[in-house]
Amino acid sequence: MARKHVGLYPGTFDPVTVGHLDIISRATRIVDHLIVGVAVNAGKGPMFTLEERVGMVRESLEEFGTRAVARIEVMPFETLLVNFVKEMEASVIIRGLRAVSDFEYEFQMAGMNARLDNTVETVFLMASERSHFISSRFVKEIGRLGGDISTFVTPSVHDRLLRRFAEEG
Amino acid sequence: MARKHVGLYPGTFDPVTVGHLDIISRATRIVDHLIVGVAVNAGKGPMFTLEERVGMVRESLEEFGTRAVARIEVMPFETLLVNFVKEMEASVIIRGLRAVSDFEYEFQMAGMNARLDNTVETVFLMASERSHFISSRFVKEIGRLGGDISTFVTPSVHDRLLRRFAEEG
Amino acid sequence: MARKHVGLYPGTFDPVTVGHLDIISRATRIVDHLIVGVAVNAGKGPMFTLEERVGMVRESLEEFGTRAVARIEVMPFETLLVNFVKEMEASVIIRGLRAVSDFEYEFQMAGMNARLDNTVETVFLMASERSHFISSRFVKEIGRLGGDISTFVTPSVHDRLLRRFAEEG
Amino acid sequence: MARKHVGLYPGTFDPVTVGHLDIISRATRIVDHLIVGVAVNAGKGPMFTLEERVGMVRESLEEFGTRAVARIEVMPFETLLVNFVKEMEASVIIRGLRAVSDFEYEFQMAGMNARLDNTVETVFLMASERSHFISSRFVKEIGRLGGDISTFVTPSVHDRLLRRFAEEG
Amino acid sequence: MARKHVGLYPGTFDPVTVGHLDIISRATRIVDHLIVGVAVNAGKGPMFTLEERVGMVRESLEEFGTRAVARIEVMPFETLLVNFVKEMEASVIIRGLRAVSDFEYEFQMAGMNARLDNTVETVFLMASERSHFISSRFVKEIGRLGGDISTFVTPSVHDRLLRRFAEEG
Amino acid sequence: MARKHVGLYPGTFDPVTVGHLDIISRATRIVDHLIVGVAVNAGKGPMFTLEERVGMVRESLEEFGTRAVARIEVMPFETLLVNFVKEMEASVIIRGLRAVSDFEYEFQMAGMNARLDNTVETVFLMASERSHFISSRFVKEIGRLGGDISTFVTPSVHDRLLRRFAEEG
Repeated sequence: MARKHVGLYPGTFDPVTVGHLDIISRATRIVDHLIVGVAVNAGKGPMFTLEERVGMVRESLEEFGTRAVARIEVMPFETLLVNFVKEMEASVIIRGLRAVSDFEYEFQMAGMNARLDNTVETVFLMASERSHFISSRFVKEIGRLGGDISTFVTPSVHDRLLRRFAEEG
Repeated sequence: MARKHVGLYPGTFDPVTVGHLDIISRATRIVDHLIVGVAVNAGKGPMFTLEERVGMVRESLEEFGTRAVARIEVMPFETLLVNFVKEMEASVIIRGLRAVSDFEYEFQMAGMNARLDNTVETVFLMASERSHFISSRFVKEIGRLGGDISTFVTPSVHDRLLRRFAEEG
Repeated sequence: MARKHVGLYPGTFDPVTVGHLDIISRATRIVDHLIVGVAVNAGKGPMFTLEERVGMVRESLEEFGTRAVARIEVMPFETLLVNFVKEMEASVIIRGLRAVSDFEYEFQMAGMNARLDNTVETVFLMASERSHFISSRFVKEIGRLGGDISTFVTPSVHDRLLRRFAEEG
Repeated sequence: MARKHVGLYPGTFDPVTVGHLDIISRATRIVDHLIVGVAVNAGKGPMFTLEERVGMVRESLEEFGTRAVARIEVMPFETLLVNFVKEMEASVIIRGLRAVSDFEYEFQMAGMNARLDNTVETVFLMASERSHFISSRFVKEIGRLGGDISTFVTPSVHDRLLRRFAEEG
Repeated sequence: MARKHVGLYPGTFDPVTVGHLDIISRATRIVDHLIVGVAVNAGKGPMFTLEERVGMVRESLEEFGTRAVARIEVMPFETLLVNFVKEMEASVIIRGLRAVSDFEYEFQMAGMNARLDNTVETVFLMASERSHFISSRFVKEIGRLGGDISTFVTPSVHDRLLRRFAEEG
Repeated sequence: MARKHVGLYPGTFDPVTVGHLDIISRATRIVDHLIVGVAVNAGKGPMFTLEERVGMVRESLEEFGTRAVARIEVMPFETLLVNFVKEMEASVIIRGLRAVSDFEYEFQMAGMNARLDNTVETVFLMASERSHFISSRFVKEIGRLGGDISTFVTPSVHDRLLRRFAEEG
């Protein structure tokens, strides 16, 4: 009989994009149960609170029509990644790769995490063609200047972003 | 109940190195059953025949003490990778990444394969610290000049390489 | 009144792919007249003769429905690139970029060409999303193993490739 | 008769360096009319105001002896880049590339812009040998510590930088 | 008779890691006398003061058992790097390289420094296997979240970090 | 009293370019005595014999006016690099870096060599501005097509290349 595979996909998701949703959807092929871990990431000064970001991932999963939504759980975390992995009884960390600069940062992170706990494995999925250019940072920059970002995020995230830009004045 | 995950780790393995064995060992954490697919790769003009290369992977798995050897199968293949994946009823292709140049080649391959069959997922594992520098090509180059390659390959591969270098004169 | 801009897009085109056709199509926005220069490239041992490759580019331009086909000319060349540019009275060399490894090779080539003739400018277009993964090399590798390459090349190139693979046995 | 080609070269120019001036000069070979667009870029907290930066580009063009200065226009902009391109009736965005990290950022930006408006083309020029090392950031860092930056910027920019460093105390 | 070679290894060292100590140790093979230059780097907002960072490097050299400690001197500097090199009568700047992104930054810095003073040479050492993943930034991020960082820094640095994290609350 | 530093600069030098001569010249600042090791490199199928390549480096050093020619020795070698280093009683291997792709190859080589003999150190010098684009391969490609390569190699190498191209017909 097969073992049960639990995966963790960590990120800041400020906000979640269709690029993230694509990785989530594809990750459910690799593992039986997937935890999307939303990092508090106080240092980066996120645009949305931890609660808002968790909410947006949950809503977006419904809207995006991700396969196997029943096998996906969204959770906030404020601890060290390898500790959260243990706590969740996950065996694998999942990360997306878009570019060489991602590669190098991720390479160092995976190396550090393997040093901290060598029972945790990190696997990488390449961004798909359609989401290769999309980053939370560009979405915010372009949206703030009035550009059309409706194909980069789900409708609910789109609404929240427009409201936030309006509040910023 | 959990689904059964079958992974395919394809390569030329001319010859298999401890870097490959490390990836194989770690891949068994991600999947329930792992097929090591040895590509015929006539174009590259390999040093060892397809049969020799399959044999070396099998012997090396025993010597290396890879975890869960019972869940690993070694098989030659001469067809298109995505077809071999289907034939083996695998759901995921596993590849190792060492450097940026690997990354780009693999990125293009994964993209092409996703176009050919979008139900196949490719996941990447980063080479571990100890095997970051090791490639089949360097092992052959250094061994041919009499350098000590005993820490880069298993004892049986080491023997075969020395015999082959002796035959080459 | 505006000057007339003549551009040269050089390559081996063994065979031309939809990635090349995309660059050609977009290049006609930058220049008034575009010469597609097919290099003899004896060193690389191309699969198709120079005449076949020129023919395939011409046919593919018709099939692809490239905008402004009247402003595009396809020509073979066997001389130094900067000399061919002069002969054609072109002012700009056009190249596509897909990946970091392209970037570095192209960077050195553009630098060498600027040394040989500093009145010639090289401009780069990024490969578009849909053609990011496509290379002549992969198309041949996959086609030879029976993979479906019909979305990577035009119908006439597809036919020629299948015939060539059949001849190879 | 040839079409009229209008190009836009956007940047922060905080301050303009001889590297930028080299790209501007070479870009006038590609297009009939060139607009140098100075972005407000409030996020980055520039050293010079938008007005100062526009002024420095204008003065530097005179001092640098850029070819065809009559065909170059310097303008500030505070809107989305693709909107500014439309407003200016430009058909092509021009960007300089120095390094792999530039390449990746630019690649994502060009991809996003093509999504926002697929009639706009981005072309890249490689930095020339002499300006390969020069960045506005290094110029400011070195100048602030009293290093000789007179070969990296024009005389008027040099004066302004020295005055600004003096004001900073 | 041989000339005396003096090398300078500059950095922020906020804090010094075993990766830095490895480079320092290996640099003593290249030069007769090595100056470790601790940059004030006000811009980056370091965690430790200049005095603390100088002290940590000195203590760590003792703990690490660096070969030839008698030939190593640790000094703060607040001036332009090339000026500090001259002042110290050094002939070579030593830098470590871990990744492609390091490479590009360093490449530009070395180019700028060669322009400022072409008698100064910069040489690069590759990070060794064991310190390939280690950066001051990751050490601080992981330590702050309670991760075990004791293999990345010396005991005295470890103590100081823990105290600092405790003070931060 | 200072130790005597002996460096080894290995390569194929098929043929030596002004880029190599620039590295050689600068390397004499780092070491007291420099050995230029010309590798037999049968695999690559060099254009010039080992003897010719050694001769060309020697002649070029005279023509180039390299500083401190008395401290430079040119020698062929057919053994493993780390063994040649030992034989020559050198303590450091010197390599030039031009691009990211160089970086990765060199990184792996330096790692392998450190495994084979951890008393040998490899240091890297960045290619200077003027030689950033120059490679033996491009020089041969361009020269063969009749391009002017006189600024990339010394006069004696230039003569030899022209004679060789004439012989090739």
